[in-house]
Amino acid sequence: MDAEAEARVRRSFARQGFMATLGAEIVHVGAGEVDIALPFSELLVQQDGFLHAGVVAGATDSACGYAALTLMEEGAEVLTVEFKVNLLAPAMGNRFVARGRVIRSGRTLTVCRGEAVAISEGSEKHIATMTATMIAVTRLR
Amino acid sequence: MDAEAEARVRRSFARQGFMATLGAEIVHVGAGEVDIALPFSELLVQQDGFLHAGVVAGATDSACGYAALTLMEEGAEVLTVEFKVNLLAPAMGNRFVARGRVIRSGRTLTVCRGEAVAISEGSEKHIATMTATMIAVTRLR
Amino acid sequence: MDAEAEARVRRSFARQGFMATLGAEIVHVGAGEVDIALPFSELLVQQDGFLHAGVVAGATDSACGYAALTLMEEGAEVLTVEFKVNLLAPAMGNRFVARGRVIRSGRTLTVCRGEAVAISEGSEKHIATMTATMIAVTRLR
Amino acid sequence: MDAEAEARVRRSFARQGFMATLGAEIVHVGAGEVDIALPFSELLVQQDGFLHAGVVAGATDSACGYAALTLMEEGAEVLTVEFKVNLLAPAMGNRFVARGRVIRSGRTLTVCRGEAVAISEGSEKHIATMTATMIAVTRLR
Repeated sequence: MDAEAEARVRRSFARQGFMATLGAEIVHVGAGEVDIALPFSELLVQQDGFLHAGVVAGATDSACGYAALTLMEEGAEVLTVEFKVNLLAPAMGNRFVARGRVIRSGRTLTVCRGEAVAISEGSEKHIATMTATMIAVTRLR
Repeated sequence: MDAEAEARVRRSFARQGFMATLGAEIVHVGAGEVDIALPFSELLVQQDGFLHAGVVAGATDSACGYAALTLMEEGAEVLTVEFKVNLLAPAMGNRFVARGRVIRSGRTLTVCRGEAVAISEGSEKHIATMTATMIAVTRLR
Repeated sequence: MDAEAEARVRRSFARQGFMATLGAEIVHVGAGEVDIALPFSELLVQQDGFLHAGVVAGATDSACGYAALTLMEEGAEVLTVEFKVNLLAPAMGNRFVARGRVIRSGRTLTVCRGEAVAISEGSEKHIATMTATMIAVTRLR
Repeated sequence: MDAEAEARVRRSFARQGFMATLGAEIVHVGAGEVDIALPFSELLVQQDGFLHAGVVAGATDSACGYAALTLMEEGAEVLTVEFKVNLLAPAMGNRFVARGRVIRSGRTLTVCRGEAVAISEGSEKHIATMTATMIAVTRLR
């Protein structure tokens, strides 16, 4: 992966107000791979005090989208076509990491797998699995 | 639907820190039906200034979950098993409404359809469609 | 919908060996709408004697794909990108109908809803709901 | 995995008329793992001569369901709640293998990943990825 692709991912991420609201940061970028981490916050919970599914899904969707973007042509941007997420365990922990990985890269469509884990006292628990379809779009400006 | 079911939905919603962060409110509760509305905010956007997919999915997931809860037995709580969302158009608008509707209600599992719309100057645009599976759990306390 | 679009759907359907194996036929074609019907057969069941999920999903996927094709440009063909199906009730009955409806039509991607019903003694039971993403491809020959 | 679990899987598979119609056989059973293989047949194709998505999905759904069954309590049976499949490449080949793997096993619900490959002249191509939710049911007889 060239340095330009990583810079493109980080520039786009920095424009996301929602990622800032989540307190999220990019902790890994590779070819077809992006990891996003966020801390627990009472501002992000559902009724039982676990991280809300929309937060888990949102961070994992962004990890998948940026993983896809690392493999797209220069000038392309990425939009989510659809995703499906299974919630495997309550999202309880001090910190959460969402990992997006490209499993099929095409000129128009990219399919990604996303996995989210909760981290407490150094041990990881698998909390969600996602399959997402991303589309490359060329921005017209 | 009895008044107790509506009260149960509203009590649970009030405990959701994430719904407060979204500025979301319940605008309709019926038997197997819940609508949640939220205003646009720069704090909730993705890189192009549209509402982030995690916000759209999160509000729609909550609408579906509470729609399911209206039909569950007293004392039950609801958790999301999985959902799948297709993003149909950019989430641009002044206000957004997520509508959850039960399409199959069972003792353990409930299947819901969720539809999200963006509202600008009085006209609605369909921005997302969701299918979600919810599970009834009995809280042990 | 022009007559060419319907003819295109029927020509493509006639090439599907699997639809013949299912004993399936097209029973409705409209703009953005296709219904496919098939009879019960012991050759198509799962372990409890209900229609197998692959049969229900296959017929509904074809109904969705052809619904999408009715709205695509002349010369286009349709391929399934992905689908998600919830099985709502056991697929028991004498006859089954899968209904595909376009909910968002784009130049490249089309999103469809599919609903499958089982028919016994004239009454319909809703057995499955699908959301499918279809892509228009131009055949190069 | 005990021998009883494998026998239970094979007995159930043998009752599936649809698996016989596909010419499918179980080629691997382990704890939380089942592989199902089938040969190419003109009877199973879509309009371009590739295996129909319903066939790919049906075989992968069965692989996932039986993978789940290997970990369920004695006397339990398995039903599919829902699945989502992304078609990654045309299903062309002499032989196809669908691999179901449990990724989260619960008392009521089990989540599985399914992967389907096409085999031609000894090389495998990844053609589909599935996430499926299975439910344990106790048969009342």
